[in-house]
Amino acid sequence: VRRLVLTVAIAAFSVSSAYAVEGMWQPAQLPKIAGMLKQHGLKLDPATLTDLTAYPMGAIVSLGGCTASFVSAEGLVVTNHHCGYGALQYNSTPQNNLIEKGFLARTHAEELQGSPDMRVFVTEDIRDVTADVTAKLSAGIDPLARYKTIDLAKKALVKACETDGYRCDVYTFHGGYSYQLIKQMEIKDVRLVYAPPESIGKFGGDIDNWMWPRHTGDFSYLRAYVSKDGKSATYSKDNVPYHPKHVLTVNPQGVEEGEYVMVVGYPGRTNRYRLADEVKSSIDWVYPTQIKIYQDTLDIIAKNGKTNPDVTVKYANTVAGLNNYLKNFGGQLEGLRRADAVAVKQRQEADMEAWLKSRGGTGNLALVADIATLRSKLAQYQATRERDLDLNLLSRVSLYSSGVRLVRLSHERAKPDMERETGYQQRDEVRIESALAQMGRRYDPKVDQQLMVYALNRYVTLPAEQRVPALDAWLEGARTPAAVSAKVAALYAGSKLGDTTNRMRWFKADAKAIEASNDSMLKLAAALVPELKKLEDEQDTRDGEMARLRPRYMEAMIAWRDSLHLPVYPDANSSLRVTFGNVQGVAPRDGVTYAPFTTAEGIVEKNTGVEPFNAPEAEIEAIRAKAFDGYASKKQGTLPVDFLADLDITGGNSGSPSLDSQGRLVGLAFDGNWESVSGDWLFNPKLNRSIQVDVRYMLWVMHHIDHADNLLKEMGVPTN
Amino acid sequence: VRRLVLTVAIAAFSVSSAYAVEGMWQPAQLPKIAGMLKQHGLKLDPATLTDLTAYPMGAIVSLGGCTASFVSAEGLVVTNHHCGYGALQYNSTPQNNLIEKGFLARTHAEELQGSPDMRVFVTEDIRDVTADVTAKLSAGIDPLARYKTIDLAKKALVKACETDGYRCDVYTFHGGYSYQLIKQMEIKDVRLVYAPPESIGKFGGDIDNWMWPRHTGDFSYLRAYVSKDGKSATYSKDNVPYHPKHVLTVNPQGVEEGEYVMVVGYPGRTNRYRLADEVKSSIDWVYPTQIKIYQDTLDIIAKNGKTNPDVTVKYANTVAGLNNYLKNFGGQLEGLRRADAVAVKQRQEADMEAWLKSRGGTGNLALVADIATLRSKLAQYQATRERDLDLNLLSRVSLYSSGVRLVRLSHERAKPDMERETGYQQRDEVRIESALAQMGRRYDPKVDQQLMVYALNRYVTLPAEQRVPALDAWLEGARTPAAVSAKVAALYAGSKLGDTTNRMRWFKADAKAIEASNDSMLKLAAALVPELKKLEDEQDTRDGEMARLRPRYMEAMIAWRDSLHLPVYPDANSSLRVTFGNVQGVAPRDGVTYAPFTTAEGIVEKNTGVEPFNAPEAEIEAIRAKAFDGYASKKQGTLPVDFLADLDITGGNSGSPSLDSQGRLVGLAFDGNWESVSGDWLFNPKLNRSIQVDVRYMLWVMHHIDHADNLLKEMGVPTN
Repeated sequence: VRRLVLTVAIAAFSVSSAYAVEGMWQPAQLPKIAGMLKQHGLKLDPATLTDLTAYPMGAIVSLGGCTASFVSAEGLVVTNHHCGYGALQYNSTPQNNLIEKGFLARTHAEELQGSPDMRVFVTEDIRDVTADVTAKLSAGIDPLARYKTIDLAKKALVKACETDGYRCDVYTFHGGYSYQLIKQMEIKDVRLVYAPPESIGKFGGDIDNWMWPRHTGDFSYLRAYVSKDGKSATYSKDNVPYHPKHVLTVNPQGVEEGEYVMVVGYPGRTNRYRLADEVKSSIDWVYPTQIKIYQDTLDIIAKNGKTNPDVTVKYANTVAGLNNYLKNFGGQLEGLRRADAVAVKQRQEADMEAWLKSRGGTGNLALVADIATLRSKLAQYQATRERDLDLNLLSRVSLYSSGVRLVRLSHERAKPDMERETGYQQRDEVRIESALAQMGRRYDPKVDQQLMVYALNRYVTLPAEQRVPALDAWLEGARTPAAVSAKVAALYAGSKLGDTTNRMRWFKADAKAIEASNDSMLKLAAALVPELKKLEDEQDTRDGEMARLRPRYMEAMIAWRDSLHLPVYPDANSSLRVTFGNVQGVAPRDGVTYAPFTTAEGIVEKNTGVEPFNAPEAEIEAIRAKAFDGYASKKQGTLPVDFLADLDITGGNSGSPSLDSQGRLVGLAFDGNWESVSGDWLFNPKLNRSIQVDVRYMLWVMHHIDHADNLLKEMGVPTN
Repeated sequence: VRRLVLTVAIAAFSVSSAYAVEGMWQPAQLPKIAGMLKQHGLKLDPATLTDLTAYPMGAIVSLGGCTASFVSAEGLVVTNHHCGYGALQYNSTPQNNLIEKGFLARTHAEELQGSPDMRVFVTEDIRDVTADVTAKLSAGIDPLARYKTIDLAKKALVKACETDGYRCDVYTFHGGYSYQLIKQMEIKDVRLVYAPPESIGKFGGDIDNWMWPRHTGDFSYLRAYVSKDGKSATYSKDNVPYHPKHVLTVNPQGVEEGEYVMVVGYPGRTNRYRLADEVKSSIDWVYPTQIKIYQDTLDIIAKNGKTNPDVTVKYANTVAGLNNYLKNFGGQLEGLRRADAVAVKQRQEADMEAWLKSRGGTGNLALVADIATLRSKLAQYQATRERDLDLNLLSRVSLYSSGVRLVRLSHERAKPDMERETGYQQRDEVRIESALAQMGRRYDPKVDQQLMVYALNRYVTLPAEQRVPALDAWLEGARTPAAVSAKVAALYAGSKLGDTTNRMRWFKADAKAIEASNDSMLKLAAALVPELKKLEDEQDTRDGEMARLRPRYMEAMIAWRDSLHLPVYPDANSSLRVTFGNVQGVAPRDGVTYAPFTTAEGIVEKNTGVEPFNAPEAEIEAIRAKAFDGYASKKQGTLPVDFLADLDITGGNSGSPSLDSQGRLVGLAFDGNWESVSGDWLFNPKLNRSIQVDVRYMLWVMHHIDHADNLLKEMGVPTN
């Protein structure tokens, strides 16, 4: 359920199960599939969903990694508990642990400032810029030039678009088949309004993560603030609540089994159009290798944590993240195996190519040839995957990466802004500065050294032609773990980048000063950066090749599916999408059936009193007494907690509103079931389900447990 | 699924779910509950089930820890794969691993001798001997005398009953409310006939152990051999197949959802009539303490196994057993918590006592007083539970226990047989000799020492008044782990009991010779035995107290339940029982439903190719091709593998035949679901289910995969 970390994608299929509707649709695509939307039960005119400034789209926002929605004219925002977690963390102390206790502001004055990096992004405009981006691409342009031309065009579009308080980004669809410029208002003053205690908001914790049946009350409330004149502004006492153009209406009756439901949000990334060879490589190499590395990393941290409790605290988030990934990777492998994914993809590719060949003509045969080239390029990239991985591991070492980053920044700063590397432009400096400033919060020199030794121990086994000369020069022939350890120990002894004041001084320094430094890590970084740049050029060349070949593959795919009267939606890319389907249970495996709803009684059943199954006593008593205050489902005869729907979501959709057939709020998406983990690669209509917290459970917890009637009133929900 | 280890008990409840039928019934009780049997679907006359020499009871046998049945006139026996496992192990070598490959004898000549300790026990007579056992108990007899009187009466009954080739035992029911003398023919030549490969017979392994949905083909075939004149005899080439009086008829159509099914077998032990205080102590102390000890023990073995692969081999069974227990204990704790077992038991006791008091009269009030005494005695015993546990841990140390056993045996041998301690009589010497001879197969001196140190490190923290003077004297004040380790190291250095030849020489020696020995372990044992004897007398005194008080509790329980028109069955005690119910799925928790059958498709779904999910390729192909050869269920449209029934079974029932309404074989019980693990303590009609392998899956594997048509023919099953 971690935002961005969650790489779950869920599939949708028809109520009639006559045909399945997989898809994360761009709002503009919806009129084209109006028939399917109606068949599944949508009562709104699909055309209204294409207007980002109308109801309901105008109420839906991004938190950057999560989705949320406005639910009052005073800028009240509802999202997942795990999406508002940062605000709870920021305001918690051991003496006053808001994560544990939960929090409720009864007045605006009681609301707490969120962490400074919290944002609410209100999408105001989406514009196709494919022509602008590709205008200067000549037919025979070489791959690196192609990459640079595209990159420059994107930067120019962003620069022309961004004004104070707004953020613009060019989003790539179908690997470069089309591009969109998206303009979002960036609200920077985001405050914590309400969150239930962790024992509700994170009930089931990591054990239930990605699992059904689920009983998590994964919701919380924030508020967007702007300056008095309605503009984006950083936190200030004088700021006032933002007045959104649209606000979701709450349907306190929720939805029942079989009813229409849709989720609108910002899914992060899927791999639905990857080739069979890529799936195979993920199964055979990527996931198994990452699993080993993550386990080894956890071992290193655990070992150090035994003698140094400080390590346990500093790496708690890292450990949680690694464990989350490990569980995810296990799910990916299991799902891809069960789906026989490689064979499925191979068949699909064979069918598509057979169709192209059967149609014939220069155009189609050129597509076939380009697909063959794509396949051989992908095979070629695999030759250096070990090296790419090892350098990536190295870049996760804090002291090393801060050194490289400081050197890189000093080089880029010398250039005009438009010529700077993406990620090192003026607009990026605030983020770089903040990352460098906060490094110490997650850094232990001993652990960091051991992680560097670990990465280098892998690196030294690479074939000679793949090694980085400057790194080899620094290693001075060290090949054994002991020799590598000694080199790294000396490196850390000679560097003061671990000291925050020192590090921030270097952030301000120019290239000359850095070059003259005798800090051992800066010296190593200075020697390495030119060679890393060369490797980056190689990567840019690859990206340039892919920017030509992937759109060609998609061109074929779209034509082929078009011939079968099947629409094509783009892979998720953090842009706004709509997915629709119905409330529906699932038969996850032989002999097992899951109901579409969990109930309050299930909380009592799971409750052990021990975290993460430690529901508040008041809640357990209320459930035992069936004190549901009118929020229970009449059809079910009890209070629903979470529900399943056959929607197609993935990480980034966390916090997305679930809307009923009339576009009213009936829940919040927060996870997918275990069987959907591999859905990022391959849609499975029989198994993939999204998990939502039911609006009835949200309202009941707010009213009965936390007495947040002020918010219910603000949202226009009658209190029973 | 380990025999005897499995402490699962399953509950039965009515199809109409109007009322539940919990119970492991003695055959003689069945006519009393004939109405219930018929209501659930039994078509046979219940009276026929009381005759042990008639069909079907005459076909059902004990393997000592497992149950089995005769399925051909030539002594062919069917049981679980895990019950025949010893025979596979005994005949396997690294070069010819029958466990892995499976085994099929196509002729009698090809059948393999089972391990020498394998037995088939054919129950020939059950006789109530309560009057004989209790005849000499005077009213005011003190507890130790009560114990000894009962013990002597039991030994006398056994002695009078046992003849060559027969085994007799007195079974205690309801803690001493009644006693039965059971006479069994002891068949000693048991041969391996057929077992599927482990990838079928143990498919799912420890991961699926105690779990549903299950896809295990847990069955195998043995054959009972006797001398030419039909008598019990040890293995000989000249022996001939045993001709049982009755043989189960196979119903190759199996049973379907809702249909009647019953299981006949030898359940080992349940605690259904334990007091609330005992349940509470198990939750608060017994299980948590055992979990810690088992984990520590596993750590000791694992640590030694890292440097010594021999340890891993020798302790493989121990490790499997400990892990099995650990999983079981987790299930016990979870189930007892979910059932709120202490509160349930407390309410039951309060109701029963209120009923007794409301009826009044000296008799009833005396029962109330005795129940109070029982409760206070149990509380009193808890005072020394740590010591009892520590000495028990010590007795699991191989070198120590062989020393104590040799000394004990030498003392007991000096007495007339009837005066010897139970377990040290002439009839027990073969077993003691075999245990001593085989000690080396599961013994590593370093691990053994560390286990002794572990037990002693606990022991030295006991309060002074609970310690054993002779043990303290030997410890010479050692209290720290280092000091205790040094003492133990010296002990092992000074003993040659680790050497089998030497140990077996001492087995033949008399008390004088042992006393004169300067073997350090024998010297310690000689010093300890008199004090251990004293502690045993204490234990015998407790047993004597319980032998009076538990029957009084049961007297009250029976009277109370009688007043509610509820029959009472005795706790399991390894004697023959019948449990009945219906094929039925289960809703194990909120949001989840389990079907009553798993199907062949589920094997493909679970199959990863990696043990324990590595079904034979031929099986996977056959299932994909739906080559079910007529064994599939017409109703289900596919081949069923395992099925659930609401029967009341526990460890010892493994291998028990599941019989249909006409007493025909339709499957073999081999496990219970996770929710039934705590059923040993408390019956839960909603959650407890037994797991059976379906006869249709057995027959299909035999025919299609392993081509065991010779056995199908022998069993009178038409091959499709």
